[in-house]
This record gives sequence, structure tokens and C-alpha cells, in this order.
Amino acid sequence: MSLVVLGTVALDHVKTPSGAKKDMLGGSAAHFAMSARLFSPVHLVAVVGKDFPQKHLDFLKRKGVDLTSLKIGQGKTFRWAGEYKKGDLNTALTLATELGVLENYVPEIAEHQKKMPNVFLANFDPDLQMKLLASIKRPQLLGLDSMNLWITHKQKSLKKLMKQVDLFVANDSEARALTGESNLIMAARALRRMGPRLIVVKKGEHGVLFYSDKFMFSFPAYPVEKVLDPTGAGDTFAGGLMGYLSKMRRVDEKTLRKALLYATTVASFNVQGFGMACTAPLTMREVEARMKTLIKFSAVS
Amino acid sequence: MSLVVLGTVALDHVKTPSGAKKDMLGGSAAHFAMSARLFSPVHLVAVVGKDFPQKHLDFLKRKGVDLTSLKIGQGKTFRWAGEYKKGDLNTALTLATELGVLENYVPEIAEHQKKMPNVFLANFDPDLQMKLLASIKRPQLLGLDSMNLWITHKQKSLKKLMKQVDLFVANDSEARALTGESNLIMAARALRRMGPRLIVVKKGEHGVLFYSDKFMFSFPAYPVEKVLDPTGAGDTFAGGLMGYLSKMRRVDEKTLRKALLYATTVASFNVQGFGMACTAPLTMREVEARMKTLIKFSAVS
Repeated sequence: MSLVVLGTVALDHVKTPSGAKKDMLGGSAAHFAMSARLFSPVHLVAVVGKDFPQKHLDFLKRKGVDLTSLKIGQGKTFRWAGEYKKGDLNTALTLATELGVLENYVPEIAEHQKKMPNVFLANFDPDLQMKLLASIKRPQLLGLDSMNLWITHKQKSLKKLMKQVDLFVANDSEARALTGESNLIMAARALRRMGPRLIVVKKGEHGVLFYSDKFMFSFPAYPVEKVLDPTGAGDTFAGGLMGYLSKMRRVDEKTLRKALLYATTVASFNVQGFGMACTAPLTMREVEARMKTLIKFSAVS
Repeated sequence: MSLVVLGTVALDHVKTPSGAKKDMLGGSAAHFAMSARLFSPVHLVAVVGKDFPQKHLDFLKRKGVDLTSLKIGQGKTFRWAGEYKKGDLNTALTLATELGVLENYVPEIAEHQKKMPNVFLANFDPDLQMKLLASIKRPQLLGLDSMNLWITHKQKSLKKLMKQVDLFVANDSEARALTGESNLIMAARALRRMGPRLIVVKKGEHGVLFYSDKFMFSFPAYPVEKVLDPTGAGDTFAGGLMGYLSKMRRVDEKTLRKALLYATTVASFNVQGFGMACTAPLTMREVEARMKTLIKFSAVS
């Protein structure tokens, strides 16, 4: 089933202990789409500037991403420059941010996309996430991601939004910051009380924790030995999760476990290359093969 | 099969956000024994002072721990006072250490214990661990634990010792400190190259990673919502691991996976009470019941 994602499409400059790359296609919605397209048709709602390279547009189209609601605005494309230091590849240090066209953007979605059954609000300003939500029919499955910036500066808007979504994705530090709970199980419970019935806590190299009223589970990440660039890993993870759930059209325990295994698997590819170097060429065959290894790696019985 | 453990027996003062307790039975060998005794007969090699309460001796005996090689030395029992701050229950802050009888202790082991098939060198001065090793027949399965103190101050002795052991247990920060690798898979590989063929990296609330030449695996910790006192969790974990391996008399993949599930399970009880409040009364029936929950929690298929 069709899946709509709202978020950023960016040009990223990234420096890690393994090297540096400039002007890479990035942003929360772009990384999400590059992963979700493996499972379901993806419709992108975002904005780029006049300077956005045609090759990136062609590339996204070639990957099957619907760009009908990708607006080309007056001004420059959103740019993010970040660095990861040796020994702590989990923490992105923002070197520079140029909002460009994001500054005056109001999400607009094409008429035929307003009734789509699955919607994901990838990391973005919660007020803009809310605006998109106000303009569409309540989806069957509505997911939300955020980040520390919004938890700090727009917590009220974020919490209002959380009351309306089904699924909330957070990494461990975000879950702790938003709830004030250091224990992740307690944090997941607290997030549940804020609204979403499906809570996903991403723990980076330590895997994932899922929490709902009826069941919870956890498993480790795929063992990646050489992380080149973790940018977009969380978005890639969310794309695998929502992509598979959209494909399956149900959110029971078995499907959720499998969706999170897929999410874990695609995210492991993301960190092995700069930008989308490893997720862009990815096929389901490669995903399935690695997932088999992951299942063996984490089998308890 | 019989299992010998060398380590500390201490009187602990612990302060956590949940309260404070004084003069608790503690120490690496004591916590190890309290867990391993559920699976195998345990023989303790350690020293306490004249001031060591008779009730603790009686208690250990009642739990089936063989105290033949527990020396009662001239002087005071080793004392440790530590605190865990709110928000970081993984990190023990040492408030005070009184070595007492440890200062002049040289491990001595009874003749009939010198040929026992399973030996664990719980966290202790590596030079003393080496001295015990020199006085016994090479066991079939020899395990080793250490801590940051020895990694910093006696790394040479520790590395010499590592060349001789089969199994090495470390927590994530120790694994990183000893190898200089921030990626835990790379750290595990580096530990393997230092000698031990079986590498266990404990990740606290994030579970465990096992590494060997032929296979590796990982699973999450049991989801404990309220950690009261994590003191001795690592020793309790090692006790479950070595205790089960001693019982089974083999170290194949299936047995190792199960041993680490038991280790994870018993460690989860340890953190739920001060000192040995939750591990002392523990029965195999309770362990099996919780392990079932853990298996369900972490099942990937």
C-alpha cells in the first residue's frame, strides 16, 4: 500500500574518521524513501531549492519515488554539514545548517495523496508536521520521528502531535530527553502514555526496543564492523519499518517483529557507506540475505 | 562438575537513588558463587578478616558454597563503598576502599581442589590471579574477568594472563579500554587476538555479545524497569555463565547461547535488590520462568 513521507531533502556535507563527502543527497525524507521504496510505493512531500541538482531528482524518480509533492521553491536547498569524531560515531556534531527554502515552507500535498493509508512524519519541525496532518485524511497508520532539537525547542508542539500518531520512533537519547526517564523500558512506557500505541526505541549499535500495551521485545543490531557514515541511519531504519508495515497492511506482533528486523537490516547497510552509497543500489535479495544472518546472529533458541 | 572461583569477598556499603545499605556481603567471588551455585558445586578461594561476620559464613555454607579455601586472615575484611547516581546506574563511583587482609593475601587452594575441571578468575589483581593459576593443574575450562583498575594499572600482567585463559568476560567499556577499539565487534576480535578463544562482552542494559572464531551472537538484557543496585551484576552474570557451562561439560554453540541466557537472567535478578537480596533466595524454578520470558522478549522468529 502507498506510503507518504514528509520530511527534509537536503544536500549534506559529512566528515567522519573515514573521509569526507560534499553535496550528497540527504535529509530525513530522502533517506526514508530510499529504504521504504524496497517494500512499498513511496510518495515524497518535501521542498528543495532551485539549486537542487537535476541528477538527484532523476535518481529519486529512477528509484520509484513519487515526486509529485516535492516542491521546487524559491531559494536554496536545505544544507547540513556535520562531523562524527573517532570513537563516537553515534553522535553527529552539526558544523553548519543553511535552512534555505525550509524557512518559508508550508507542506503541500497533491489531492490524490491526501487519502493514502500510511503516512510517516520524518524528522522535521513539529509545527510543519502538524500542518501536513491537518491537510490530509487520518491515515490508517501514522508514524512520527523527531530529534533533540525539537524536543528542546518545540516540545509543546511535539507532544500535541504525539497524541495523534500511532507509531513513534525515537533513539535512546531522545526517548530519555523527552521523558526524563533514564531506564529505557520506563522511558518507552512514558512515551506510550504520551499517546502513540506503538513505541520504537532505536539504540544504535545496541539494536532496538519495541513497546506496546500488549507486548514488548528487543533485539540487537546487525554487527557492522566498519561504520563509515551513520547519517540517515535512523531515517533508513524508519523507512524499512514503515515500508514493510505498509506492504503487509497489518501491525500485529509477528509483522512488527519482522518489520523491525527489516528496519535493522537496511539501517546496517546505510552506515556502511557515505550518504546513500550502500542503500541506493540495494536490492531485496541482498536485504533478505543479510536478514538471515541477523536472525542467526540474534537467535535465542 | 565442580567449579572453583578466585576473587574477593567483601563488605559493601552501597548508595543508590533507591536507598543505602551497609555491611552487605559482596565481592566478585561471593556474587559469582551466589549465582553459580544454582548450576554447579562452587568452591570459593578468597580471604576475609577476623571481623567477617559469622552469619555471612553460615549463609554461604547454607547455600552450598565450599569454603575450604576461604582463608580467615589477620586484619580486616576488604571493604568497598560506592555510589550510583540517578540517571547513570551503570557507573559505580567508588567512595572508599579498605584493602585490609587483601594487602598481603596470596591465594592458597586446598589440595583436592587443584585438579578441578572448571576455574573462574573473578575480578581481582591479575598478579594474584596468576599465582593461583601457577598452583593448580590446567583446568578444562578457564575463565577470566577483570576491571578498568587493572586495565589501567596492571595491563601487562593482565595481558599475560589472557594468553592462558579460554574465556574472557568484559563489559563494553573494559573491552574498549583494553583494545582501543570503539566498535564492539572490532573490540571483541581484538580481545580474541589477545588469547582467549571465547569472548563475552557484557553491555549492561543492552545485553551481551559473544564472539569466537566460528560464530558470534548477541541478545538483549532482560527488561528490568527498576534497578535498585547493580553491584555484582557482572559477577552474577559470570557465575550463571560458568555455572551452566560446568554443569553441561561442553562449550558448543548451543550450550554457550543457553549459558549466556542463564547468565543474563540471573544478572537481572541481581540488579533488582541491594547486594544479594534477590539472588540469595533465588531458585532454579524462578530462573527458568524468567528465562522463558526473556526468550519470548528477544525471539527474532
